[in-house]
Amino acid sequence: MSSTFGTAVRLSIFGESHSAAIGCAVDGLPAGIAVDVARLQAFLDRRAPGRDATATARREADAPRFLSGIVNGRTTGTPLAAVIENANTRSSDYDELRRIPRPGHADFPAQVRYRGYQDVAGGGHFSGRLTAPLCVAGGIALQALEAAGVTVVAHIAELGPERIADEPLDPLSIDAAQQRSILAHSLPCVSAQAADAMRARIMAAKNDLDSVGGIIECAAYGLPAGIGDPMFDGIENRIAQIAFGIPAVKGVEFGAGFGAARLTGSRNNDAFRMEDGRVRPQANHAGGILGGITDGMPVIWRMAVKPTPSIGRAQQSVDLAAGANAELKVRGRHDPCIVPRAVPVAEAACAFALLDALVEAGAYPAAPPADAAAATALKSARFGGAGH
Amino acid sequence: MSSTFGTAVRLSIFGESHSAAIGCAVDGLPAGIAVDVARLQAFLDRRAPGRDATATARREADAPRFLSGIVNGRTTGTPLAAVIENANTRSSDYDELRRIPRPGHADFPAQVRYRGYQDVAGGGHFSGRLTAPLCVAGGIALQALEAAGVTVVAHIAELGPERIADEPLDPLSIDAAQQRSILAHSLPCVSAQAADAMRARIMAAKNDLDSVGGIIECAAYGLPAGIGDPMFDGIENRIAQIAFGIPAVKGVEFGAGFGAARLTGSRNNDAFRMEDGRVRPQANHAGGILGGITDGMPVIWRMAVKPTPSIGRAQQSVDLAAGANAELKVRGRHDPCIVPRAVPVAEAACAFALLDALVEAGAYPAAPPADAAAATALKSARFGGAGH
Amino acid sequence: MSSTFGTAVRLSIFGESHSAAIGCAVDGLPAGIAVDVARLQAFLDRRAPGRDATATARREADAPRFLSGIVNGRTTGTPLAAVIENANTRSSDYDELRRIPRPGHADFPAQVRYRGYQDVAGGGHFSGRLTAPLCVAGGIALQALEAAGVTVVAHIAELGPERIADEPLDPLSIDAAQQRSILAHSLPCVSAQAADAMRARIMAAKNDLDSVGGIIECAAYGLPAGIGDPMFDGIENRIAQIAFGIPAVKGVEFGAGFGAARLTGSRNNDAFRMEDGRVRPQANHAGGILGGITDGMPVIWRMAVKPTPSIGRAQQSVDLAAGANAELKVRGRHDPCIVPRAVPVAEAACAFALLDALVEAGAYPAAPPADAAAATALKSARFGGAGH
Amino acid sequence: MSSTFGTAVRLSIFGESHSAAIGCAVDGLPAGIAVDVARLQAFLDRRAPGRDATATARREADAPRFLSGIVNGRTTGTPLAAVIENANTRSSDYDELRRIPRPGHADFPAQVRYRGYQDVAGGGHFSGRLTAPLCVAGGIALQALEAAGVTVVAHIAELGPERIADEPLDPLSIDAAQQRSILAHSLPCVSAQAADAMRARIMAAKNDLDSVGGIIECAAYGLPAGIGDPMFDGIENRIAQIAFGIPAVKGVEFGAGFGAARLTGSRNNDAFRMEDGRVRPQANHAGGILGGITDGMPVIWRMAVKPTPSIGRAQQSVDLAAGANAELKVRGRHDPCIVPRAVPVAEAACAFALLDALVEAGAYPAAPPADAAAATALKSARFGGAGH
Repeated sequence: MSSTFGTAVRLSIFGESHSAAIGCAVDGLPAGIAVDVARLQAFLDRRAPGRDATATARREADAPRFLSGIVNGRTTGTPLAAVIENANTRSSDYDELRRIPRPGHADFPAQVRYRGYQDVAGGGHFSGRLTAPLCVAGGIALQALEAAGVTVVAHIAELGPERIADEPLDPLSIDAAQQRSILAHSLPCVSAQAADAMRARIMAAKNDLDSVGGIIECAAYGLPAGIGDPMFDGIENRIAQIAFGIPAVKGVEFGAGFGAARLTGSRNNDAFRMEDGRVRPQANHAGGILGGITDGMPVIWRMAVKPTPSIGRAQQSVDLAAGANAELKVRGRHDPCIVPRAVPVAEAACAFALLDALVEAGAYPAAPPADAAAATALKSARFGGAGH
Repeated sequence: MSSTFGTAVRLSIFGESHSAAIGCAVDGLPAGIAVDVARLQAFLDRRAPGRDATATARREADAPRFLSGIVNGRTTGTPLAAVIENANTRSSDYDELRRIPRPGHADFPAQVRYRGYQDVAGGGHFSGRLTAPLCVAGGIALQALEAAGVTVVAHIAELGPERIADEPLDPLSIDAAQQRSILAHSLPCVSAQAADAMRARIMAAKNDLDSVGGIIECAAYGLPAGIGDPMFDGIENRIAQIAFGIPAVKGVEFGAGFGAARLTGSRNNDAFRMEDGRVRPQANHAGGILGGITDGMPVIWRMAVKPTPSIGRAQQSVDLAAGANAELKVRGRHDPCIVPRAVPVAEAACAFALLDALVEAGAYPAAPPADAAAATALKSARFGGAGH
Repeated sequence: MSSTFGTAVRLSIFGESHSAAIGCAVDGLPAGIAVDVARLQAFLDRRAPGRDATATARREADAPRFLSGIVNGRTTGTPLAAVIENANTRSSDYDELRRIPRPGHADFPAQVRYRGYQDVAGGGHFSGRLTAPLCVAGGIALQALEAAGVTVVAHIAELGPERIADEPLDPLSIDAAQQRSILAHSLPCVSAQAADAMRARIMAAKNDLDSVGGIIECAAYGLPAGIGDPMFDGIENRIAQIAFGIPAVKGVEFGAGFGAARLTGSRNNDAFRMEDGRVRPQANHAGGILGGITDGMPVIWRMAVKPTPSIGRAQQSVDLAAGANAELKVRGRHDPCIVPRAVPVAEAACAFALLDALVEAGAYPAAPPADAAAATALKSARFGGAGH
Repeated sequence: MSSTFGTAVRLSIFGESHSAAIGCAVDGLPAGIAVDVARLQAFLDRRAPGRDATATARREADAPRFLSGIVNGRTTGTPLAAVIENANTRSSDYDELRRIPRPGHADFPAQVRYRGYQDVAGGGHFSGRLTAPLCVAGGIALQALEAAGVTVVAHIAELGPERIADEPLDPLSIDAAQQRSILAHSLPCVSAQAADAMRARIMAAKNDLDSVGGIIECAAYGLPAGIGDPMFDGIENRIAQIAFGIPAVKGVEFGAGFGAARLTGSRNNDAFRMEDGRVRPQANHAGGILGGITDGMPVIWRMAVKPTPSIGRAQQSVDLAAGANAELKVRGRHDPCIVPRAVPVAEAACAFALLDALVEAGAYPAAPPADAAAATALKSARFGGAGH
């Protein structure tokens, strides 16, 4: 299922870059979750284009319209649907792309996969614009997690060929100052200097008609231990499955990640100690996950974002209609670096995967009965056979 | 997953009776299926309320707006989404229902399941109105099947306590005259007399502030043999899973169905003979399905539809807020019999389940390449390693 | 997925009638469920062949060997696997069936579906023998449900063309005397006379080289209200999906079922009253399910079992290898009526579907910590970020 | 679902390190795939312990017994099941682990997740031994892919803190000499020198009572373009989901992977050219995947394997029963480096994911009819309604 994710809470994303609208349906959300639409919009604005010279010139409000699943500011428990209208489309920019696939884009494999019937305009269903409904669903998941004591934070850990690096997130416990810094700086970095240096590097790529990539680090603080499953449905598998659904992601790692392969076991193992009657690991090379299951430490992971493939420079491609080589200069509006806008997307993806895992584990707290009628109904829940 | 159906083609339905809109997302539709929107609308009109004195007074166009997944009248292969606005809502009719659950409705179990946060207005997500998006998805499936030589037909086989019966559908091969009759008569029946008698019975129930149920028979002609799977994913399992998703359905049977339990094996077995070099069963007690797999005969099934639970008569219920017994007279607009409007819903459900099974089996024919560019791309599909 | 069922608790069945062994893997069982192997064996013996002159002469112990998932008599929470060796196979009986498909069997559609590679011996994967691993998984589910206060009971409600009828199960609350009678009589019936009459009818069919079918009724007592989901994942959908996985089942109905279509709404609606501060329906035409969700009354359903297609009489078929008509007399050992042996299978299927629904709803009670070490670990479960 | 993977071809793995047996059920394999058991055994032997001084002293044949799904050396199309008996178990080695969780292992989160009922012996279901049934399923997938022109190869790309590096696999087309070298050397490396250096490093870790990790690179040659889906079900998502199911994997990347984040777009984009009338990328930074869909180039990916957490040195842990700090020296037999044995596991995981994707896409070639009877049946497949 291309555009469906989740087990207990299931997300279905639809839309194309230049279709009438894009949106999502979310089935299985627990009933009674409070959704603060203003905070959700503020979250979505972190992803939205057009805020800054480093991003595409396309400007849209990206305001979701909720069609169902919310009554009086709380989830009903039945499917939630939201759509975002595609107000600002310029399809004529893209006509050439039906014939001449862009290097590094899905244009060519999509031609094979969909036999030429795919929506080509703006990248169609492969567009980064489809991360907007992911952020709607994930933004609600972030609020749901917060209500359960879980906070998800991401930042740009590294950017560009020069490997401009930010401070890492605290791997042991949440640092509220880091959170505030990330939201305050010119790019989502803990360090203001790193943010400014990254911003300059992106502008240089823009001037160069080129693009740069980077690495995003994301942490979830406050998760209980014991969430997730062994083998194919562990927390790593779930986060990786949703994260590789974000366009341009080419790598995902947890805790020490690829670096763990370069440590000895005696260095990489996180020792346990008792603290206040509870078990607590003393380090977090595991990224909060052992055997696919949370160990109570923060879940920490990173994703590698490739440089935006749409660049202004001339590139070698082919003219499929003519069956001949061709040169391509990608026109239209494109980000020289997608990494800053992908930071809230990483948070959204992580939050959705974790909410799904918590609900599946029966570990998401139930809302209190909505009113006296519901309380009576719940009290009646078991009135079955003899003796029960 | 409450509102998600399908394996290779996946339907996600959202909306509540009185939410902003209802709709569906369909993921996995093959690319290049022609969708005739006018024919789809004509199909939807067969389900829509307000056409006739036997149905609810609520009148709405039920015109879907396609948000994505269709370009130039053909499916793109990426998720298709459609919404129907809920223009005509009268939520004040339903306020009482939060406290006093209607007998025969989901009101009470929904209070328990959703802890009082469910949308109560108009039955919320449990409303028969949710069959509209099912008919959008199923109406597209009907067109897709037709392009592959499969025709789905349904009618009212029986109605009311008097068991007013229509002629059965031809179990061996499609009868175009039956199809035309069903669409021409005052209710969807092969026999005009049966249609008129059923119509009179429904009007009598209405006058009586009561309701009646019935049995719908549905056949799919032209399916190839070999589709479906043993055990839990057979054609029977799939149709039953989607059919029990239609509100008020309380029974599903295939071929001779419950009647098969009253035959001897020598009567119930369908003999095989060779005809024109091909194997052909000589009867169709099996309803076209043996071991969960199509045998090449028409798939025939029936579903029992209970009488509409919303009736004007006084009924015994409880006041959940007060924790006391109460009397309820259901107000609002309700059909005295849902059966006629459920006939196209049965066709839609059957078509969707069969399209999903055909696609999963790799038996749905691929569309030709859309243009010369697509043809070149498809020719390039295998250019891999040495020797391949 | 042909042979996989379930959402939170997932059953995968494997094996063929005459393969080395048959068995099942069950993933997602809650940890700590006590499994009484002797009681499980007693349950399996109710399904096993060879107990009685009404059943096939094939005699096997049908004793499962547990490969994993149980330690010290309790489930571990990781996948449980069990196999039953196929000791007594006589494959030469079936060689002819590769060429001459048996009417009423899956032989012919299986030839198409599997292109001739399927295991033909004894019906292969389509054999009723595959209900043995379903009964292993379902027998464990029955014990798990019992620990949660839920009891599942089934009996033969009706048998044969003469419609020999048993007393119905109590639709309002469990009747322990009924349960005892069903286990005590010559066939699983509440009434001894019905059991004896049915038994005589089966013997008559045997003498006649023919077969008979019947209807099985099954009830689950003690389920809480609020379990299940609307639309496609309701309790009806789930039970229907697993029940149609039992060979020879051609119809499934809930509560008043097809009979509901012949009632008026005022008769079919189950009134609510307060009893001891709790809501309680006053009748059970709904079969304990409204809108797909349990209403707290017993879940009652029936399944129609067709007459065994393997009969000793000459039947018309075709010789696929010769491409010509042929006459077939089925040899080998076959039951003249599968209905009695299908009674525990119905209980197993129902129990598995309900356990899955309870676990998915987070409504299955957690086992206490196994020991002091587990208690410390559970106490440590939340030691995450600041303030949590 | 912890131990289930796949969409069209579904794998269910069961067993614990010291349970009676371990094994797998595979549902959805196309019918008619030839399975060469001797070649499969040779593949399994590459993973098996006890071959070499670098691996654990536990010696077992790891010979699967096929219970179902294969007749006359070909898959039947119905579920295939295989078990491997656990002959050589020494459970007493592990009793202490119930109380004292090993750092870096799943012992502690498993205590929380399973409330103390999990099988502790040998790591239970979390043991690397569970990769044996994954290799049975994947080994069959490798043979199935080979019949479709797809070859999967893996090697150790890097090992240890010193980053001992092997030659990379050819990213553009298969190199048969590389394949032969990998199988011939002392460890699975293209370069004999790299193999010997890595082997020396592992022996040093063993002598040091410590362990080392590494990075495995895997390539699939010969895949057609157009396989996979956008967003959450792309080839990257699928391979990542199964690869993170292999114990000790902490990172997965495709093509240039994390390195892509350090390239400019003009460097990372793979140009297209026409060659012999077909489109062909000129480089493979994408690892054969664009937008989740194969582009016809080799699929190349890497996984990071952490150092084995079981080490002989004293480590800090806790005694859960006593609620106090404790020191742990892991006894029993453990590999100082799991990387060499994980190489065939990576091949198996990759092959299974790709076979699943090919079958789901309808792109796996159907086997010819098994015999004349099957040919007649297939010719009869469509004999439905008028005109079809």
